[in-house]
Amino acid sequence: LSHLYHFSKVFYLCVHAISGNTDGAVARESTERNCSSTPPYLPSTAVNTSLQLEELRVQMRGMNISAYIIPATDAHLSEYIAPRDARLAFMTGFTGSAGTAVVTLNKAALWTDSRYWVQAERQMDCNWELEKDGRSAHILLTCYDNTFPPLETQEDYNINLESSDRSLKSITENLVDKVWKERPSVPPDSLTQRTWQEKVEHIRTQMGDSPYKPTGLLLSALDETAWLFNMRGNDIPYNPFFYSYTLLTMDEIWLFLHMERVTEELKVYLNASCEGALCVQLKGYDTILDHLKNYVTRPGVKVWIGTEYTNYALYEVITPQDKLLTSSYSPVLTTKAVKDETEQQILRDAHVRDAVAVIQFLMWLEKTVPEGNQTELTAAEYVDKCRSKQKDSRGPSFGTISASGPNAALAHYSPSKETNRRLTVDEMYLVDSGGQYLDGTTDITRTVHWGKPTEMQKEAFTRVLMGNIEISRTIFPSGTRGVNMEMLGRRALWEVGLNYGHGTGHGVGNYFGVHEWPVGFQSNNIPFRAGMFTSIEPGYYKENDFGIRIEDVAVVVPVQTKYGNNYLTFDTVSLVPYDRKLIDTSLLSSEQLHFLNKYYETIRSMVGPELDNQGLREEKDWMLRNTEPFAEIGSSASVSSSSLTLIALAVALLHNIV
Amino acid sequence: LSHLYHFSKVFYLCVHAISGNTDGAVARESTERNCSSTPPYLPSTAVNTSLQLEELRVQMRGMNISAYIIPATDAHLSEYIAPRDARLAFMTGFTGSAGTAVVTLNKAALWTDSRYWVQAERQMDCNWELEKDGRSAHILLTCYDNTFPPLETQEDYNINLESSDRSLKSITENLVDKVWKERPSVPPDSLTQRTWQEKVEHIRTQMGDSPYKPTGLLLSALDETAWLFNMRGNDIPYNPFFYSYTLLTMDEIWLFLHMERVTEELKVYLNASCEGALCVQLKGYDTILDHLKNYVTRPGVKVWIGTEYTNYALYEVITPQDKLLTSSYSPVLTTKAVKDETEQQILRDAHVRDAVAVIQFLMWLEKTVPEGNQTELTAAEYVDKCRSKQKDSRGPSFGTISASGPNAALAHYSPSKETNRRLTVDEMYLVDSGGQYLDGTTDITRTVHWGKPTEMQKEAFTRVLMGNIEISRTIFPSGTRGVNMEMLGRRALWEVGLNYGHGTGHGVGNYFGVHEWPVGFQSNNIPFRAGMFTSIEPGYYKENDFGIRIEDVAVVVPVQTKYGNNYLTFDTVSLVPYDRKLIDTSLLSSEQLHFLNKYYETIRSMVGPELDNQGLREEKDWMLRNTEPFAEIGSSASVSSSSLTLIALAVALLHNIV
Repeated sequence: LSHLYHFSKVFYLCVHAISGNTDGAVARESTERNCSSTPPYLPSTAVNTSLQLEELRVQMRGMNISAYIIPATDAHLSEYIAPRDARLAFMTGFTGSAGTAVVTLNKAALWTDSRYWVQAERQMDCNWELEKDGRSAHILLTCYDNTFPPLETQEDYNINLESSDRSLKSITENLVDKVWKERPSVPPDSLTQRTWQEKVEHIRTQMGDSPYKPTGLLLSALDETAWLFNMRGNDIPYNPFFYSYTLLTMDEIWLFLHMERVTEELKVYLNASCEGALCVQLKGYDTILDHLKNYVTRPGVKVWIGTEYTNYALYEVITPQDKLLTSSYSPVLTTKAVKDETEQQILRDAHVRDAVAVIQFLMWLEKTVPEGNQTELTAAEYVDKCRSKQKDSRGPSFGTISASGPNAALAHYSPSKETNRRLTVDEMYLVDSGGQYLDGTTDITRTVHWGKPTEMQKEAFTRVLMGNIEISRTIFPSGTRGVNMEMLGRRALWEVGLNYGHGTGHGVGNYFGVHEWPVGFQSNNIPFRAGMFTSIEPGYYKENDFGIRIEDVAVVVPVQTKYGNNYLTFDTVSLVPYDRKLIDTSLLSSEQLHFLNKYYETIRSMVGPELDNQGLREEKDWMLRNTEPFAEIGSSASVSSSSLTLIALAVALLHNIV
Repeated sequence: LSHLYHFSKVFYLCVHAISGNTDGAVARESTERNCSSTPPYLPSTAVNTSLQLEELRVQMRGMNISAYIIPATDAHLSEYIAPRDARLAFMTGFTGSAGTAVVTLNKAALWTDSRYWVQAERQMDCNWELEKDGRSAHILLTCYDNTFPPLETQEDYNINLESSDRSLKSITENLVDKVWKERPSVPPDSLTQRTWQEKVEHIRTQMGDSPYKPTGLLLSALDETAWLFNMRGNDIPYNPFFYSYTLLTMDEIWLFLHMERVTEELKVYLNASCEGALCVQLKGYDTILDHLKNYVTRPGVKVWIGTEYTNYALYEVITPQDKLLTSSYSPVLTTKAVKDETEQQILRDAHVRDAVAVIQFLMWLEKTVPEGNQTELTAAEYVDKCRSKQKDSRGPSFGTISASGPNAALAHYSPSKETNRRLTVDEMYLVDSGGQYLDGTTDITRTVHWGKPTEMQKEAFTRVLMGNIEISRTIFPSGTRGVNMEMLGRRALWEVGLNYGHGTGHGVGNYFGVHEWPVGFQSNNIPFRAGMFTSIEPGYYKENDFGIRIEDVAVVVPVQTKYGNNYLTFDTVSLVPYDRKLIDTSLLSSEQLHFLNKYYETIRSMVGPELDNQGLREEKDWMLRNTEPFAEIGSSASVSSSSLTLIALAVALLHNIV
């Protein structure tokens, strides 16, 4: 493990992650704008965007552009973006994570989905129309900065514009950036690790094995380059990535990054001064487009790209079509999804320390909540603090979701000063949090009740737990897709007419972004193989009342079966007990109870010693109390108790007779 | 129900179905051809195709064609074809149901999948090469009769040929037909039913509701036209279809069929002599192409087609693209999938009578097999005979799969004189059979053992049964896709490392083809809604040993749940008990046992009265014996027995004390 700690000493010079989340506050006052009244009414949460719109239109007229499209993501189509890429929020005032804006010379409109309509009416001023129909976004478009839209959208736009006799025009500068005077700058520095050479060889072998004979592989997603070179950065809050691209051929490697961050040590690490197949040629981040254009002029080139993460500007350079090889995910992402033995072991280790932090936190809540001084925010701070005390902690992996009572029923809730709710023994509390550690990324959700839960709350909690257990205990052939097993997480809820409206899990890895695709249970996720790590997270949400989610991370492991080979199952690596009070054991099958008890034994054997090592006595006692085994039906314990009852009854009977 | 029986009297003038199956015999002698030996060796099952190849090449030279493609299907891309469309078999000698042949001026090759390689080596002579790699079928192609390939293949061919500087040439006559002197002719006659006008209105409403505003709908699959007009025919063995196309617009209807079959009564039924929106214009079957070409010249037309069943000749007429609206399945197929109340009721009724036939058959097997004179073939004949005695029987719905011992492990086995195996009490026996009735189509599989099954056979059988039960008892939201529930049929097998290599179910309906798509559990099947009927058919196959399949048909029904609306479950309509001897009840959960007992109660209440009505006393006793309830764990029966034991024990104890 020494090389990982080494990289923390030598190469880790990053600014601290910017705290807070990019989702923004949901206004406390329940007022939304009213643009039909005279004068128009704007709540205090609405942002005045008149100036930026005026300046953007000046730019548009200067380039003869009739309409400009602004998406919600960055050039890497990242799921989480840095503040410097929050162009949609800058232009519209709207800070939701999904949406597309279009600005024409006399109109401005935002399209977003139903999760965000209320938020949009609170944050936008009357310069902006809110469009609720996703399809009409295609109308009235003429051009935009083509760096950003993913390939499919681009083609959709093209098709839809044909009929209205307009066309998409690509430009290479982002007009919003020209208007955004106070745009945040690029954070400095990066992180390095060893054996990138072996990874490069392995990827080159896959390129050679492909019947389509690609000559080059273009890596656009930030975690691809980070993984390949064993480097980390700090350019995106909660995500240890650095802005970069990589172009890999069979005998050359170009790494595009911000050159001002490159130290001499990094150059040595990357063999930047030699010439050869395992020498990395460092290039400026902004030169990728020209370099690719140039590469593509070589005879016989064929560039492989992952379409889920490659922006259109790069895609359209690779023409004609016979120079292009596409798959949804590049071989780097699919290789990265399967963790080697070391990666598996250290990710398990990170989870043991993470469990200590969460156990510490849950114990503290039990003590302090009844005193009446804790809120969603103080609790979120405290769990972050607990994690920060663990070895190799590198901050949270995302903005903690700390939600009490009805707030837990809001799908994307994160507490803010305006919405902050006091924690009380009268409400259910849901906390979804995770940490970044040098050895791994964690993500866990627990739901608790410190008072008297209702029968319905217990039933719903237990059925969510049954869903988690049913997936976790399934044995399946290697290569089974998560989407085909996903309903096992819902089945116990469906039985009583309940359901949840989100996905059931995502991949997770060694100090990358917390949603590590393409592993998971969605329809576009890849088949499960041993060595993949995924979250398993069913839930149930009762609007205006409460919310439940029970999330663990599990690793896919081979399992012996009676007759067959190549079967797998899940091995849970999150090691925190569930709230006993919320479990109605009468609903659990014997297999489920047994699974729960074995899980609790594992928590004791894995986390016990770590708690001892850290001298956390009180926490250890709490853990032991909360991992007491449940009585299993038909176990000798329960049988003997019922026989004794009957014998006592018989004795009593006979006493009366005799 | 009188209208259905009416159609049987007035309009049902068909030739008898051609018996036997199109799959052909698998040679008994284990010899295959050897084209490398001198002279080449050909088994007696190989067909001499030299003459047809020579004559085909004469035709090809005459039209300046370098290569000719012969697919395995007909112009409607039907899953089952009539002998007159078995061009692949005529040209190659190979009678498997999947394959593509290509003939050049000096080579001839067949591509087929691994199920059929052995069969191909037994049936083809040395004129033919057997290609085992699916991809190379695209090489060396120049043209073929474009009526047949489905749209995707056509486009694949085009793309693959570009690089070798060749092109696909469409021709409108089938060269094989010119060579095939003894090609079977078109069978006569058709079948009618009522209220086609209501169906036409309903489909027109769906066309009007579509945002894409189609002006016409083209029906190519034979069951589409049969359903729309409530007509049946006899053009394909086991499938009551008649060759036809339909073009439906908002105010016109054209029905293309063989005019020599049209009676005066049919013309009256179809309003063939008037002019108007509900008057059917009858056209010759062979005029479809010209008619469609003509229709497409009208201004503003937009033709809707279902791509799964429309051949390329029709597709390429509808140009440019803006005149075309495509979906996988037409609104006729998706509407037909949801049976109305009458259709549901009569399909259930058909299953009650079908159960009588199968029960009669299973009882007869029990008696006669130990005598030693029954074979797979005599058994297949007998079950067909049992069905033929039931009211409104119209023959089998497919060639009965009657398979003993190791034959049951062969996926597409059907007994023939060469392979026929004697039935014995020492082997498991699998029978998959079904019937056509005027009110419905049935399909059911039972597996039995009249002697002593091994422990492994019982375990495998029970786990297959558990799979069937787990799907059948699941409660799910309306709109859930079968593909997401499919693994419930496998889970109990996976637990011990077993699996099966086929799909888990297909739609079924009211006197149509036995595989009634697009309902089922496959990835291209539509979401489940109340009123759909599907088979549920997990299995397990041990090569060279035995095979198990347990198939029932079930209807999707609404179900009340504690908290939610719009939930569905399955209601089994096949009503035949399973072989008790093969069920290991210790493996079943209490829910599964309970489900089984309720199913057996249903069999008694639905089939009992029918058996009485038909005066089948012995069969009724057999049915009652085989639907005895199983003891349920924790049932009052078992609890009281164990309490009594304990009390007795206590009494004995006290007796000793006192």
